Amino acid sequence: MEIAMIGLGKMGMGIAENLLRHQHQVKGFDIDPSVAKAVQEIGGSFHFDIESLLAEQTKQQIVWLMLPAGILTNNMVMTVADLLNEGDIVIEAGNSHYQDSLKNFDYCQQRGVHFIDVGTSGGVEGARNGACMMIGGDQQIFAELEPLFTDLCVDKGFIHSGPAGSGHYLKMVHNGIEYGMMQSIGEGFNLLHHSPYDFQLAEVAQVFNHGSVIRSWLMELTEKIYQQPEEMTEIAGVIPSSGEGKWTVEEALRLKVNLPVITQSLMTRFASEDCDKISEKLVALLRNQFGGHAIVKDE
Amino acid sequence: MEIAMIGLGKMGMGIAENLLRHQHQVKGFDIDPSVAKAVQEIGGSFHFDIESLLAEQTKQQIVWLMLPAGILTNNMVMTVADLLNEGDIVIEAGNSHYQDSLKNFDYCQQRGVHFIDVGTSGGVEGARNGACMMIGGDQQIFAELEPLFTDLCVDKGFIHSGPAGSGHYLKMVHNGIEYGMMQSIGEGFNLLHHSPYDFQLAEVAQVFNHGSVIRSWLMELTEKIYQQPEEMTEIAGVIPSSGEGKWTVEEALRLKVNLPVITQSLMTRFASEDCDKISEKLVALLRNQFGGHAIVKDE
Repeated sequence: MEIAMIGLGKMGMGIAENLLRHQHQVKGFDIDPSVAKAVQEIGGSFHFDIESLLAEQTKQQIVWLMLPAGILTNNMVMTVADLLNEGDIVIEAGNSHYQDSLKNFDYCQQRGVHFIDVGTSGGVEGARNGACMMIGGDQQIFAELEPLFTDLCVDKGFIHSGPAGSGHYLKMVHNGIEYGMMQSIGEGFNLLHHSPYDFQLAEVAQVFNHGSVIRSWLMELTEKIYQQPEEMTEIAGVIPSSGEGKWTVEEALRLKVNLPVITQSLMTRFASEDCDKISEKLVALLRNQFGGHAIVKDE
Repeated sequence: MEIAMIGLGKMGMGIAENLLRHQHQVKGFDIDPSVAKAVQEIGGSFHFDIESLLAEQTKQQIVWLMLPAGILTNNMVMTVADLLNEGDIVIEAGNSHYQDSLKNFDYCQQRGVHFIDVGTSGGVEGARNGACMMIGGDQQIFAELEPLFTDLCVDKGFIHSGPAGSGHYLKMVHNGIEYGMMQSIGEGFNLLHHSPYDFQLAEVAQVFNHGSVIRSWLMELTEKIYQQPEEMTEIAGVIPSSGEGKWTVEEALRLKVNLPVITQSLMTRFASEDCDKISEKLVALLRNQFGGHAIVKDE
Protein backbone atom coordinates (compact mmCIF):
# COMPACT_ATOMS: atom_id res chain seq x y z
CA MET A 1 0.00 0.00 0.00
CA GLU A 2 0.98 3.63 -0.34
CA ILE A 3 0.67 5.66 2.83
CA ALA A 4 0.71 9.44 3.10
CA MET A 5 2.35 10.07 6.47
CA ILE A 6 1.64 13.42 8.12
CA GLY A 7 3.88 14.08 11.11
CA LEU A 8 7.42 12.75 10.99
CA GLY A 9 8.54 13.14 14.56
CA LYS A 10 10.05 10.24 16.52
CA MET A 11 6.88 8.15 16.30
CA GLY A 12 5.90 9.06 12.72
CA MET A 13 9.40 8.43 11.44
CA GLY A 14 9.45 5.08 13.25
CA ILE A 15 6.17 4.06 11.61
CA ALA A 16 7.46 5.26 8.21
CA GLU A 17 10.59 3.14 8.62
CA ASN A 18 8.49 0.14 9.65
CA LEU A 19 6.18 0.60 6.63
CA LEU A 20 9.07 0.94 4.19
CA ARG A 21 10.75 -2.16 5.57
CA HIS A 22 7.51 -4.02 4.83
CA GLN A 23 7.51 -2.97 1.16
CA HIS A 24 4.89 -0.26 1.50
CA GLN A 25 5.40 3.12 -0.14
CA VAL A 26 5.59 6.19 2.05
CA LYS A 27 5.17 9.80 1.03
CA GLY A 28 5.57 12.20 3.92
CA PHE A 29 4.83 15.70 5.15
CA ASP A 30 5.94 17.54 8.26
CA ILE A 31 5.80 21.23 9.17
CA ASP A 32 9.52 20.89 9.78
CA PRO A 33 11.00 20.51 6.26
CA SER A 34 14.37 19.54 7.71
CA VAL A 35 13.14 15.97 8.12
CA ALA A 36 12.85 15.64 4.32
CA LYS A 37 16.34 14.22 4.00
CA ALA A 38 15.78 11.62 6.70
CA VAL A 39 12.62 10.31 4.98
CA GLN A 40 14.31 10.18 1.63
CA GLU A 41 17.27 8.32 3.08
CA ILE A 42 15.04 5.51 4.31
CA GLY A 43 13.30 5.28 0.94
CA GLY A 44 10.30 7.57 1.24
CA SER A 45 9.43 10.79 -0.50
CA PHE A 46 8.79 14.18 1.07
CA HIS A 47 6.23 16.84 0.14
CA PHE A 48 6.56 20.43 1.28
CA ASP A 49 2.81 21.02 1.55
CA ILE A 50 -0.32 19.00 2.23
CA GLU A 51 -1.92 19.84 -1.12
CA SER A 52 0.98 18.34 -3.03
CA LEU A 53 1.04 15.33 -0.69
CA LEU A 54 -2.62 14.57 -1.39
CA ALA A 55 -2.70 15.63 -5.06
CA GLU A 56 -3.15 12.05 -6.26
CA GLN A 57 -6.77 11.73 -7.42
CA THR A 58 -6.88 8.43 -9.25
CA LYS A 59 -6.81 5.84 -6.48
CA GLN A 60 -7.93 5.42 -2.87
CA GLN A 61 -5.62 7.36 -0.58
CA ILE A 62 -4.60 6.29 2.91
CA VAL A 63 -3.41 9.11 5.17
CA TRP A 64 -1.65 8.32 8.44
CA LEU A 65 -1.63 11.15 11.01
CA MET A 66 1.03 11.03 13.73
CA LEU A 67 0.84 14.45 15.35
CA PRO A 68 0.64 15.87 18.85
CA ALA A 69 -2.89 15.32 20.16
CA GLY A 70 -5.41 18.12 20.44
CA ILE A 71 -5.82 21.12 18.22
CA LEU A 72 -2.98 20.22 15.85
CA THR A 73 -4.39 16.79 15.15
CA ASN A 74 -8.01 17.92 15.00
CA ASN A 75 -7.27 20.77 12.58
CA MET A 76 -5.22 18.45 10.40
CA VAL A 77 -8.06 15.90 10.25
CA MET A 78 -10.35 18.65 8.92
CA THR A 79 -7.76 19.93 6.44
CA VAL A 80 -7.09 16.44 5.15
CA ALA A 81 -10.74 15.37 5.03
CA ASP A 82 -11.53 18.46 2.96
CA LEU A 83 -8.79 17.57 0.46
CA LEU A 84 -9.58 13.86 0.16
CA ASN A 85 -12.11 12.14 -2.05
CA GLU A 86 -14.98 9.93 -0.96
CA GLY A 87 -13.77 6.51 0.10
CA ASP A 88 -10.32 7.66 1.14
CA ILE A 89 -9.09 6.71 4.60
CA VAL A 90 -7.69 8.78 7.46
CA ILE A 91 -5.81 6.82 10.15
CA GLU A 92 -5.29 8.97 13.23
CA ALA A 93 -2.69 7.26 15.41
CA GLY A 94 -1.72 10.00 17.87
CA ASN A 95 -2.45 10.02 21.60
CA SER A 96 -5.82 11.69 21.07
CA HIS A 97 -8.74 11.98 23.43
CA TYR A 98 -11.42 9.52 22.35
CA GLN A 99 -14.05 12.26 22.32
CA ASP A 100 -11.95 14.22 19.81
CA SER A 101 -11.83 11.05 17.73
CA LEU A 102 -15.60 10.76 17.84
CA LYS A 103 -15.84 14.33 16.50
CA ASN A 104 -13.16 13.69 13.89
CA PHE A 105 -14.98 10.52 12.83
CA ASP A 106 -18.19 12.52 12.36
CA TYR A 107 -16.43 15.24 10.39
CA CYS A 108 -14.87 12.71 8.04
CA GLN A 109 -18.04 10.68 7.71
CA GLN A 110 -19.98 13.75 6.56
CA ARG A 111 -17.47 14.04 3.70
CA GLY A 112 -17.57 10.33 2.85
CA VAL A 113 -14.06 9.85 4.18
CA HIS A 114 -13.36 6.88 6.44
CA PHE A 115 -11.79 7.59 9.82
CA ILE A 116 -9.90 5.07 11.90
CA ASP A 117 -8.53 5.91 15.36
CA VAL A 118 -5.45 4.05 16.50
CA GLY A 119 -3.99 3.99 19.99
CA THR A 120 -0.31 3.14 19.69
CA SER A 121 1.84 1.67 22.45
CA GLY A 122 5.38 0.37 22.61
CA GLY A 123 7.27 3.64 22.27
CA VAL A 124 9.61 4.70 19.48
CA GLU A 125 11.27 1.30 19.43
CA GLY A 126 7.84 -0.32 18.95
CA ALA A 127 6.88 2.10 16.17
CA ARG A 128 10.04 1.13 14.32
CA ASN A 129 10.17 -2.61 14.95
CA GLY A 130 6.75 -3.79 16.03
CA ALA A 131 4.13 -1.79 17.89
CA CYS A 132 0.94 -2.54 19.77
CA MET A 133 -2.15 -0.91 18.24
CA MET A 134 -5.75 -0.55 19.39
CA ILE A 135 -7.93 0.25 16.44
CA GLY A 136 -11.38 1.84 16.47
CA GLY A 137 -13.71 2.42 13.52
CA ASP A 138 -15.81 0.56 10.97
CA GLN A 139 -15.19 -3.16 10.90
CA GLN A 140 -14.99 -3.27 7.11
CA ILE A 141 -12.40 -0.50 6.84
CA PHE A 142 -10.40 -2.20 9.57
CA ALA A 143 -10.56 -5.43 7.53
CA GLU A 144 -9.21 -3.58 4.47
CA LEU A 145 -6.33 -2.21 6.51
CA GLU A 146 -5.59 -5.38 8.47
CA PRO A 147 -2.54 -6.35 6.35
CA LEU A 148 -1.02 -2.97 7.21
CA PHE A 149 -1.46 -3.53 10.96
CA THR A 150 -0.12 -7.07 10.62
CA ASP A 151 3.05 -5.58 9.17
CA LEU A 152 3.38 -2.76 11.70
CA CYS A 153 2.67 -4.65 14.91
CA VAL A 154 4.25 -7.50 16.81
CA ASP A 155 2.50 -10.85 16.53
CA LYS A 156 -0.98 -10.57 18.17
CA GLY A 157 -0.15 -6.91 18.76
CA PHE A 158 -3.28 -5.28 17.40
CA ILE A 159 -6.99 -5.37 18.09
CA HIS A 160 -10.09 -4.01 16.40
CA SER A 161 -11.50 -2.72 19.63
CA GLY A 162 -14.89 -1.56 18.38
CA PRO A 163 -16.51 1.49 16.76
CA ALA A 164 -14.99 4.96 16.36
CA GLY A 165 -13.14 6.24 19.40
CA SER A 166 -12.63 2.83 20.98
CA GLY A 167 -8.98 2.63 19.90
CA HIS A 168 -8.11 5.85 21.67
CA TYR A 169 -10.34 4.92 24.62
CA LEU A 170 -8.41 1.72 25.10
CA LYS A 171 -5.09 3.52 24.77
CA MET A 172 -6.23 6.04 27.39
CA VAL A 173 -7.02 3.30 29.90
CA HIS A 174 -3.80 1.48 28.96
CA ASN A 175 -1.91 4.62 29.93
CA GLY A 176 -3.89 4.95 33.15
CA ILE A 177 -2.82 1.43 34.09
CA GLU A 178 0.73 2.36 33.08
CA TYR A 179 0.65 5.35 35.48
CA GLY A 180 -0.29 3.09 38.39
CA MET A 181 2.21 0.37 37.54
CA MET A 182 5.05 2.87 37.14
CA GLN A 183 4.16 4.68 40.36
CA SER A 184 4.09 1.39 42.24
CA ILE A 185 7.55 0.47 40.94
CA GLY A 186 8.81 3.98 41.77
CA GLU A 187 7.53 3.71 45.33
CA GLY A 188 8.92 0.23 45.90
CA PHE A 189 12.39 1.23 44.71
CA ASN A 190 12.24 4.40 46.77
CA LEU A 191 11.59 2.26 49.85
CA LEU A 192 14.49 -0.03 48.91
CA HIS A 193 16.67 3.07 48.49
CA HIS A 194 15.84 4.17 52.05
CA SER A 195 15.97 0.66 53.52
CA PRO A 196 18.51 -0.48 56.11
CA TYR A 197 20.10 -2.74 53.47
CA ASP A 198 22.52 -1.77 50.74
CA PHE A 199 20.62 -3.33 47.85
CA GLN A 200 22.21 -3.41 44.40
CA LEU A 201 19.15 -2.13 42.60
CA ALA A 202 20.12 -3.14 39.05
CA GLU A 203 20.50 -6.71 40.31
CA VAL A 204 17.26 -6.44 42.25
CA ALA A 205 15.36 -5.33 39.13
CA GLN A 206 17.02 -8.13 37.21
CA VAL A 207 15.93 -10.80 39.67
CA PHE A 208 12.41 -9.28 39.77
CA ASN A 209 12.35 -9.93 36.03
CA HIS A 210 13.25 -13.59 36.25
CA GLY A 211 10.48 -15.77 37.55
CA SER A 212 8.80 -13.25 39.88
CA VAL A 213 5.16 -12.17 39.86
CA ILE A 214 6.07 -8.56 38.93
CA ARG A 215 8.16 -9.37 35.87
CA SER A 216 7.22 -6.88 33.19
CA TRP A 217 8.60 -4.64 30.49
CA LEU A 218 8.53 -1.70 32.91
CA MET A 219 10.71 -3.70 35.31
CA GLU A 220 13.12 -4.40 32.43
CA LEU A 221 13.34 -0.65 31.85
CA THR A 222 13.91 -0.19 35.59
CA GLU A 223 16.85 -2.60 35.36
CA LYS A 224 18.28 -0.56 32.48
CA ILE A 225 17.92 2.67 34.48
CA TYR A 226 19.77 1.28 37.50
CA GLN A 227 22.57 0.06 35.26
CA GLN A 228 23.32 3.77 34.67
CA PRO A 229 22.45 5.09 38.13
CA GLU A 230 24.35 8.34 37.64
CA GLU A 231 21.39 9.60 35.61
CA MET A 232 19.30 9.43 38.79
CA THR A 233 21.51 12.07 40.38
CA GLU A 234 21.40 14.30 37.32
CA ILE A 235 17.67 14.71 36.79
CA ALA A 236 15.01 16.51 38.81
CA GLY A 237 12.27 14.51 40.51
CA VAL A 238 9.61 15.96 38.26
CA ILE A 239 7.20 13.76 36.28
CA PRO A 240 5.52 15.51 33.37
CA SER A 241 2.28 14.05 32.04
CA SER A 242 0.87 14.34 28.57
CA GLY A 243 -2.84 13.94 29.22
CA GLU A 244 -3.87 10.29 29.02
CA GLY A 245 -3.70 9.72 32.78
CA LYS A 246 -5.74 12.87 33.38
CA TRP A 247 -8.32 11.76 30.80
CA THR A 248 -8.56 8.35 32.46
CA VAL A 249 -9.38 10.02 35.78
CA GLU A 250 -11.80 12.44 34.09
CA GLU A 251 -13.56 9.48 32.48
CA ALA A 252 -13.78 7.78 35.89
CA LEU A 253 -15.35 10.97 37.28
CA ARG A 254 -17.81 11.08 34.39
CA LEU A 255 -18.81 7.44 34.93
CA LYS A 256 -18.46 7.61 38.74
CA VAL A 257 -16.01 4.73 38.79
CA ASN A 258 -13.60 4.31 41.73
CA LEU A 259 -9.99 4.69 40.56
CA PRO A 260 -7.96 5.40 43.69
CA VAL A 261 -4.52 4.23 42.61
CA ILE A 262 -4.56 5.66 39.10
CA THR A 263 -5.84 8.96 40.51
CA GLN A 264 -3.14 8.97 43.17
CA SER A 265 -0.49 8.30 40.50
CA LEU A 266 -1.71 11.33 38.59
CA MET A 267 -1.80 13.51 41.70
CA THR A 268 1.75 12.39 42.51
CA ARG A 269 2.80 13.69 39.10
CA PHE A 270 1.07 17.01 39.73
CA ALA A 271 2.78 17.23 43.15
CA SER A 272 6.14 16.54 41.51
CA GLU A 273 5.63 19.54 39.22
CA ASP A 274 4.37 21.84 41.94
CA CYS A 275 7.16 24.28 42.82
CA ASP A 276 4.89 26.68 44.69
CA LYS A 277 3.97 24.06 47.30
CA ILE A 278 1.15 26.28 48.55
CA SER A 279 -0.70 23.32 50.03
CA GLU A 280 2.34 22.18 52.02
CA LYS A 281 3.09 25.76 53.11
CA LEU A 282 -0.47 26.29 54.27
CA VAL A 283 -0.53 23.07 56.28
CA ALA A 284 2.85 23.90 57.85
CA LEU A 285 1.58 27.37 58.80
CA LEU A 286 -1.66 25.99 60.23
CA ARG A 287 0.37 23.63 62.45
CA ASN A 288 2.47 26.59 63.46
CA GLN A 289 -0.59 28.74 64.22
CA PHE A 290 -2.43 26.33 66.46
CA GLY A 291 0.43 24.37 67.95
CA GLY A 292 3.51 26.53 67.60
CA HIS A 293 5.12 23.72 65.60
CA ALA A 294 8.38 24.66 63.93
CA ILE A 295 8.35 25.71 60.31
CA VAL A 296 11.14 25.20 57.79
CA LYS A 297 12.33 28.49 56.27
CA ASP A 298 13.10 28.71 52.57
CA GLU A 299 16.80 29.13 51.84
CA MET B 1 22.47 -32.46 48.25
CA GLU B 2 20.03 -33.91 50.75
CA ILE B 3 17.38 -31.50 51.95
CA ALA B 4 15.12 -31.95 54.95
CA MET B 5 11.92 -30.23 53.91
CA ILE B 6 9.60 -29.05 56.68
CA GLY B 7 6.19 -27.96 55.42
CA LEU B 8 4.77 -29.79 52.44
CA GLY B 9 1.89 -27.57 51.43
CA LYS B 10 1.50 -26.31 47.87
CA MET B 11 4.78 -24.36 47.93
CA GLY B 12 6.82 -26.89 49.91
CA MET B 13 5.66 -29.77 47.76
CA GLY B 14 6.51 -27.77 44.64
CA ILE B 15 10.04 -27.10 45.91
CA ALA B 16 10.39 -30.79 46.86
CA GLU B 17 9.37 -31.84 43.35
CA ASN B 18 11.78 -29.31 41.85
CA LEU B 19 14.65 -30.58 44.05
CA LEU B 20 13.96 -34.23 43.27
CA ARG B 21 13.85 -33.52 39.54
CA HIS B 22 17.33 -32.00 39.92
CA GLN B 23 18.74 -35.18 41.52
CA HIS B 24 18.72 -33.91 45.08
CA GLN B 25 17.42 -36.09 47.89
CA VAL B 26 14.39 -34.94 49.85
CA LYS B 27 13.22 -36.15 53.23
CA GLY B 28 10.06 -34.43 54.38
CA PHE B 29 7.94 -33.62 57.39
CA ASP B 30 4.53 -32.00 57.68
CA ILE B 31 2.08 -31.82 60.59
CA ASP B 32 -0.43 -33.32 58.17
CA PRO B 33 0.75 -36.94 57.76
CA SER B 34 -1.63 -37.44 54.82
CA VAL B 35 0.93 -35.83 52.49
CA ALA B 36 3.35 -38.72 53.15
CA LYS B 37 2.10 -40.67 50.16
CA ALA B 38 2.43 -37.70 47.78
CA VAL B 39 6.09 -37.14 48.81
CA GLN B 40 6.92 -40.79 48.43
CA GLU B 41 5.28 -40.92 45.02
CA ILE B 42 7.58 -38.21 43.69
CA GLY B 43 10.64 -39.95 45.12
CA GLY B 44 11.10 -38.42 48.57
CA SER B 45 10.81 -39.94 52.03
CA PHE B 46 8.48 -38.87 54.83
CA HIS B 47 9.12 -38.69 58.57
CA PHE B 48 6.31 -38.54 61.08
CA ASP B 49 8.19 -36.35 63.54
CA ILE B 50 10.93 -33.73 63.47
CA GLU B 51 13.28 -35.73 65.70
CA SER B 52 13.32 -38.62 63.28
CA LEU B 53 13.69 -36.23 60.31
CA LEU B 54 16.79 -34.66 61.82
CA ALA B 55 18.23 -37.79 63.46
CA GLU B 56 21.18 -37.90 61.02
CA GLN B 57 24.25 -36.78 62.96
CA THR B 58 27.15 -37.68 60.69
CA LYS B 59 27.05 -35.00 57.98
CA GLN B 60 26.02 -31.37 57.56
CA GLN B 61 22.27 -31.09 57.43
CA ILE B 62 20.32 -28.62 55.31
CA VAL B 63 16.79 -27.91 56.51
CA TRP B 64 14.33 -26.08 54.28
CA LEU B 65 11.36 -24.49 56.05
CA MET B 66 8.28 -23.71 53.98
CA LEU B 67 5.63 -22.87 56.53
CA PRO B 68 3.06 -20.14 57.11
CA ALA B 69 4.90 -17.04 58.31
CA GLY B 70 4.78 -15.88 61.91
CA ILE B 71 4.58 -17.99 65.04
CA LEU B 72 4.56 -21.34 63.21
CA THR B 73 7.74 -20.54 61.31
CA ASN B 74 9.47 -18.85 64.25
CA ASN B 75 8.74 -21.72 66.63
CA MET B 76 9.90 -24.24 64.06
CA VAL B 77 13.19 -22.36 63.55
CA MET B 78 13.85 -22.65 67.31
CA THR B 79 12.84 -26.31 67.45
CA VAL B 80 15.04 -27.15 64.49
CA ALA B 81 18.02 -25.06 65.64
CA ASP B 82 17.91 -26.84 68.99
CA LEU B 83 18.04 -30.25 67.28
CA LEU B 84 20.77 -29.43 64.73
CA ASN B 85 24.52 -29.52 65.15
CA GLU B 86 26.96 -26.68 64.70
CA GLY B 87 27.52 -25.89 61.05
CA ASP B 88 24.12 -27.15 59.90
CA ILE B 89 22.00 -24.83 57.77
CA VAL B 90 18.41 -23.63 58.13
CA ILE B 91 16.86 -22.15 54.98
CA GLU B 92 13.66 -20.30 55.84
CA ALA B 93 11.81 -19.65 52.61
CA GLY B 94 8.34 -18.65 53.82
CA ASN B 95 6.75 -15.21 53.49
CA SER B 96 8.25 -14.06 56.79
CA HIS B 97 8.64 -10.56 58.14
CA TYR B 98 12.28 -9.55 57.81
CA GLN B 99 12.44 -8.59 61.48
CA ASP B 100 11.40 -12.12 62.43
CA SER B 101 14.19 -13.36 60.19
CA LEU B 102 16.68 -11.14 61.98
CA LYS B 103 15.59 -12.70 65.30
CA ASN B 104 15.67 -16.20 63.82
CA PHE B 105 19.15 -15.53 62.45
CA ASP B 106 20.32 -14.48 65.92
CA TYR B 107 18.76 -17.51 67.56
CA CYS B 108 20.46 -19.87 65.12
CA GLN B 109 23.77 -18.04 65.26
CA GLN B 110 23.91 -18.43 69.05
CA ARG B 111 23.72 -22.20 68.49
CA GLY B 112 26.31 -22.21 65.71
CA VAL B 113 23.62 -22.98 63.13
CA HIS B 114 23.60 -21.01 59.86
CA PHE B 115 20.39 -19.24 58.93
CA ILE B 116 19.46 -18.17 55.43
CA ASP B 117 16.25 -16.23 54.68
CA VAL B 118 14.71 -16.70 51.26
CA GLY B 119 11.94 -14.64 49.72
CA THR B 120 10.23 -16.78 47.10
CA SER B 121 8.20 -15.46 44.19
CA GLY B 122 6.59 -17.08 41.17
CA GLY B 123 3.78 -18.94 42.87
CA VAL B 124 3.22 -22.70 43.01
CA GLU B 125 4.09 -23.09 39.34
CA GLY B 126 7.41 -21.32 39.99
CA ALA B 127 8.20 -23.45 43.02
CA ARG B 128 7.74 -26.55 40.90
CA ASN B 129 9.39 -25.46 37.64
CA GLY B 130 11.62 -22.49 38.32
CA ALA B 131 11.15 -19.86 41.00
CA CYS B 132 12.55 -16.43 41.77
CA MET B 133 14.44 -16.25 45.07
CA MET B 134 15.89 -13.38 47.10
CA ILE B 135 18.42 -14.73 49.52
CA GLY B 136 19.69 -13.07 52.69
CA GLY B 137 22.46 -14.28 55.01
CA ASP B 138 26.20 -14.91 55.16
CA GLN B 139 27.91 -14.67 51.79
CA GLN B 140 29.89 -17.85 52.34
CA ILE B 141 26.86 -19.96 53.25
CA PHE B 142 25.07 -18.55 50.23
CA ALA B 143 28.04 -19.58 48.08
CA GLU B 144 27.83 -23.14 49.47
CA LEU B 145 24.15 -23.30 48.61
CA GLU B 146 24.37 -21.57 45.24
CA PRO B 147 24.14 -24.82 43.19
CA LEU B 148 20.86 -25.53 44.97
CA PHE B 149 19.41 -22.13 44.00
CA THR B 150 20.69 -22.54 40.45
CA ASP B 151 18.66 -25.74 40.24
CA LEU B 152 15.50 -24.34 41.86
CA CYS B 153 15.27 -21.00 40.06
CA VAL B 154 14.81 -19.83 36.51
CA ASP B 155 17.92 -18.51 34.78
CA LYS B 156 19.07 -15.31 36.56
CA GLY B 157 16.19 -15.91 38.98
CA PHE B 158 18.01 -15.57 42.30
CA ILE B 159 20.03 -12.94 44.08
CA HIS B 160 22.15 -12.84 47.22
CA SER B 161 20.58 -9.63 48.40
CA GLY B 162 22.76 -8.99 51.45
CA PRO B 163 22.97 -9.94 55.13
CA ALA B 164 20.32 -11.69 57.22
CA GLY B 165 16.78 -10.44 56.66
CA SER B 166 17.49 -8.86 53.29
CA GLY B 167 15.89 -11.72 51.35
CA HIS B 168 12.61 -11.31 53.15
CA TYR B 169 12.91 -7.52 53.02
CA LEU B 170 13.19 -7.63 49.26
CA LYS B 171 10.29 -10.05 48.98
CA MET B 172 8.21 -7.70 51.16
CA VAL B 173 8.83 -4.75 48.84
CA HIS B 174 8.32 -6.99 45.80
CA ASN B 175 4.86 -7.78 47.14
CA GLY B 176 4.18 -4.12 47.86
CA ILE B 177 4.94 -3.33 44.20
CA GLU B 178 2.73 -6.27 43.24
CA TYR B 179 -0.17 -4.79 45.24
CA GLY B 180 0.08 -1.50 43.33
CA MET B 181 0.47 -3.12 39.92
CA MET B 182 -2.49 -5.44 40.50
CA GLN B 183 -4.67 -2.63 41.82
CA SER B 184 -3.84 -0.51 38.80
CA ILE B 185 -4.80 -3.32 36.44
CA GLY B 186 -7.99 -3.93 38.44
CA GLU B 187 -8.96 -0.27 38.21
CA GLY B 188 -8.24 0.01 34.50
CA PHE B 189 -10.32 -3.04 33.66
CA ASN B 190 -13.11 -1.81 35.94
CA LEU B 191 -13.18 1.43 33.92
CA LEU B 192 -13.24 -0.57 30.66
CA HIS B 193 -16.10 -2.65 32.10
CA HIS B 194 -18.13 0.53 32.74
CA SER B 195 -17.07 2.26 29.52
CA PRO B 196 -19.45 3.16 26.68
CA TYR B 197 -17.76 0.50 24.51
CA ASP B 198 -18.35 -3.24 24.54
CA PHE B 199 -14.72 -4.27 24.87
CA GLN B 200 -13.80 -7.95 24.62
CA LEU B 201 -11.61 -7.94 27.69
CA ALA B 202 -9.73 -11.20 27.03
CA GLU B 203 -8.68 -9.78 23.67
CA VAL B 204 -7.82 -6.45 25.27
CA ALA B 205 -5.55 -8.13 27.81
CA GLN B 206 -4.01 -10.15 25.01
CA VAL B 207 -3.18 -7.06 22.94
CA PHE B 208 -1.85 -5.32 26.08
CA ASN B 209 0.59 -8.23 26.32
CA HIS B 210 1.92 -7.93 22.80
CA GLY B 211 4.17 -4.94 22.28
CA SER B 212 2.58 -2.54 24.78
CA VAL B 213 4.29 -0.73 27.64
CA ILE B 214 2.23 -2.61 30.27
CA ARG B 215 3.02 -6.12 29.09
CA SER B 216 3.68 -8.21 32.16
CA TRP B 217 3.04 -11.57 33.75
CA LEU B 218 0.15 -10.05 35.72
CA MET B 219 -1.43 -8.96 32.43
CA GLU B 220 -1.00 -12.51 31.12
CA LEU B 221 -2.89 -13.76 34.17
CA THR B 222 -5.54 -11.09 33.49
CA GLU B 223 -5.95 -12.50 29.99
CA LYS B 224 -6.40 -15.99 31.46
CA ILE B 225 -9.05 -14.70 33.89
CA TYR B 226 -11.10 -13.02 31.14
CA GLN B 227 -10.96 -16.20 29.08
CA GLN B 228 -13.17 -17.73 31.81
CA PRO B 229 -15.24 -14.65 32.66
CA GLU B 230 -17.97 -16.65 34.39
CA GLU B 231 -15.70 -16.89 37.43
CA MET B 232 -16.00 -13.11 37.80
CA THR B 233 -19.73 -13.48 38.43
CA GLU B 234 -19.23 -16.29 40.91
CA ILE B 235 -16.83 -14.72 43.38
CA ALA B 236 -17.22 -11.90 45.89
CA GLY B 237 -15.30 -8.66 45.40
CA VAL B 238 -13.21 -9.26 48.48
CA ILE B 239 -9.39 -9.18 48.38
CA PRO B 240 -7.72 -10.90 51.31
CA SER B 241 -4.15 -9.97 52.14
CA SER B 242 -1.53 -12.08 53.81
CA GLY B 243 0.69 -9.44 55.37
CA GLU B 244 3.45 -8.39 53.01
CA GLY B 245 1.62 -5.32 51.69
CA LYS B 246 0.84 -4.25 55.25
CA TRP B 247 4.48 -4.74 56.27
CA THR B 248 5.63 -2.67 53.29
CA VAL B 249 3.43 0.21 54.44
CA GLU B 250 4.53 -0.24 58.05
CA GLU B 251 8.16 -0.08 56.91
CA ALA B 252 7.37 3.12 54.98
CA LEU B 253 5.85 4.58 58.15
CA ARG B 254 8.91 3.54 60.17
CA LEU B 255 11.26 5.17 57.63
CA LYS B 256 8.88 8.07 56.82
CA VAL B 257 8.90 7.23 53.13
CA ASN B 258 6.01 8.35 50.90
CA LEU B 259 4.15 5.34 49.48
CA PRO B 260 0.78 6.66 48.31
CA VAL B 261 -0.16 4.08 45.71
CA ILE B 262 0.98 0.99 47.60
CA THR B 263 -0.80 2.31 50.72
CA GLN B 264 -3.96 2.97 48.72
CA SER B 265 -3.80 -0.56 47.28
CA LEU B 266 -3.66 -1.96 50.78
CA MET B 267 -6.52 0.28 51.99
CA THR B 268 -8.58 -0.83 48.98
CA ARG B 269 -8.11 -4.42 50.16
CA PHE B 270 -9.20 -3.52 53.67
CA ALA B 271 -12.24 -1.70 52.24
CA SER B 272 -13.10 -4.77 50.17
CA GLU B 273 -13.20 -6.89 53.36
CA ASP B 274 -15.15 -4.35 55.39
CA CYS B 275 -18.75 -5.58 55.69
CA ASP B 276 -19.65 -3.20 58.51
CA LYS B 277 -19.02 -0.11 56.34
CA ILE B 278 -19.17 2.08 59.44
CA SER B 279 -17.15 4.81 57.73
CA GLU B 280 -19.52 4.97 54.75
CA LYS B 281 -22.58 4.83 57.03
CA LEU B 282 -21.24 7.66 59.16
CA VAL B 283 -20.50 9.88 56.16
CA ALA B 284 -23.95 9.16 54.70
CA LEU B 285 -25.59 10.05 58.03
CA LEU B 286 -23.54 13.24 58.38
CA ARG B 287 -24.72 14.34 54.91
CA ASN B 288 -28.24 13.51 55.98
CA GLN B 289 -27.90 15.47 59.25
CA PHE B 290 -26.60 18.70 57.82
CA GLY B 291 -28.16 18.65 54.38
CA GLY B 292 -31.12 16.31 54.55
CA HIS B 293 -29.50 14.26 51.80
CA ALA B 294 -31.18 10.93 51.11
CA ILE B 295 -29.76 7.81 52.72
CA VAL B 296 -29.89 4.30 51.27
CA LYS B 297 -31.63 1.86 53.64
CA ASP B 298 -30.25 -1.64 54.14
CA GLU B 299 -32.43 -4.35 52.66
